[in-house]
Amino acid sequence: MRVKHKPWAKEKLLSHPEVCVNNPEDFKGHWSNVFGNDNPIHIEIGSGKGQFISGMAKQHPDVNYIGIEVVESVLVVALDKVLQAGVSNARLLSVDGANLLDYFEPAEVGRIYLNFSDPWPKKRHTKRRLTSPQFLDLYHTLLGEKGEIHFKTDNRGLFEYSLVAFSAYGLNLKEVSLNLHEDEMEGNVMTEYEEKFSQKGFPIYRLEASFQ
Amino acid sequence: MRVKHKPWAKEKLLSHPEVCVNNPEDFKGHWSNVFGNDNPIHIEIGSGKGQFISGMAKQHPDVNYIGIEVVESVLVVALDKVLQAGVSNARLLSVDGANLLDYFEPAEVGRIYLNFSDPWPKKRHTKRRLTSPQFLDLYHTLLGEKGEIHFKTDNRGLFEYSLVAFSAYGLNLKEVSLNLHEDEMEGNVMTEYEEKFSQKGFPIYRLEASFQ
Repeated sequence: MRVKHKPWAKEKLLSHPEVCVNNPEDFKGHWSNVFGNDNPIHIEIGSGKGQFISGMAKQHPDVNYIGIEVVESVLVVALDKVLQAGVSNARLLSVDGANLLDYFEPAEVGRIYLNFSDPWPKKRHTKRRLTSPQFLDLYHTLLGEKGEIHFKTDNRGLFEYSLVAFSAYGLNLKEVSLNLHEDEMEGNVMTEYEEKFSQKGFPIYRLEASFQ
Repeated sequence: MRVKHKPWAKEKLLSHPEVCVNNPEDFKGHWSNVFGNDNPIHIEIGSGKGQFISGMAKQHPDVNYIGIEVVESVLVVALDKVLQAGVSNARLLSVDGANLLDYFEPAEVGRIYLNFSDPWPKKRHTKRRLTSPQFLDLYHTLLGEKGEIHFKTDNRGLFEYSLVAFSAYGLNLKEVSLNLHEDEMEGNVMTEYEEKFSQKGFPIYRLEASFQ
């Protein structure tokens, strides 16, 4: 995603501490306190402009959502979407997905969403793919045995790679769709990118997986 | 596949014992004797009109191929293709795939090909799908730990079902392609059906899996 640099982004994020948590390391193991309830915590890694996380928060008031997005100029767009949605069960973190163990205790997360992640198509960049073994190790710790990974993408190469990587890791595939929009999945919340791309008639691939 | 009944089929198959093995139970554990060498044995379950098995036999003279097709009126077409190919490393069996343990010893088979198998889309017919757990049990016995399943289909529902079923069984996905013909896989031998279908621009799905 190409994004215009917004020098004012940091200040805007800081001015909305009710949504953008600026000291996430302080809440490691205590995210329930942030939300004021014991509802499950679902995170989206690479939440971009926030249409998914804000839409999900509105659709599922009994789940707590945390959107992770390292690029502040993108996260401010997500902030606006969350504010517009008027939800109290969504938070945003401007941190690197690779460092999530600094912010969450093992098994503190109930579900991880990966939506239209960067495909990193070059072989030498394999490790950067959000479904590489290194990241699966991280997710395993964050989710424990019961949590789930829900992953969707339009990128065929990344989806093929991920099916093989998940299998090699011993993850269990629970659901697979190779054309999500033809299936008309109930309750599917589209990302900005998904909306554009599926209108062109290209297939969206989706899977759900767990470690048990 | 709709096929015209051919009352003369049985007689024609019987008249070519060098290709159509009419007493396969006699060779259980001794297929090497039939071929006169110790080359690996690869079987295709549901070999239809035989373009795949005859093409593979021609392309890989160091592998022994056995095509399994229960419908005799179809198998006679495959017989013609094998005869035309002029190969000595292909045999055809007119038997039901579900009974293969009557004809092969455990781990006697090195690879199983499933090409454009009947999708049996209705839920109550799930057990008939050639990638259902019952069949995976059978393949596990036939292949042992080292053998591989190579599966291709144009049917999205069957492929999605199979990915989940293979994962639940603990099979390892080694290769996945969600658009085989865009990938231009080297050495791909097309079935009759594949040729027609891929010309229309529809994707062909393919995977390789093993039990270890």
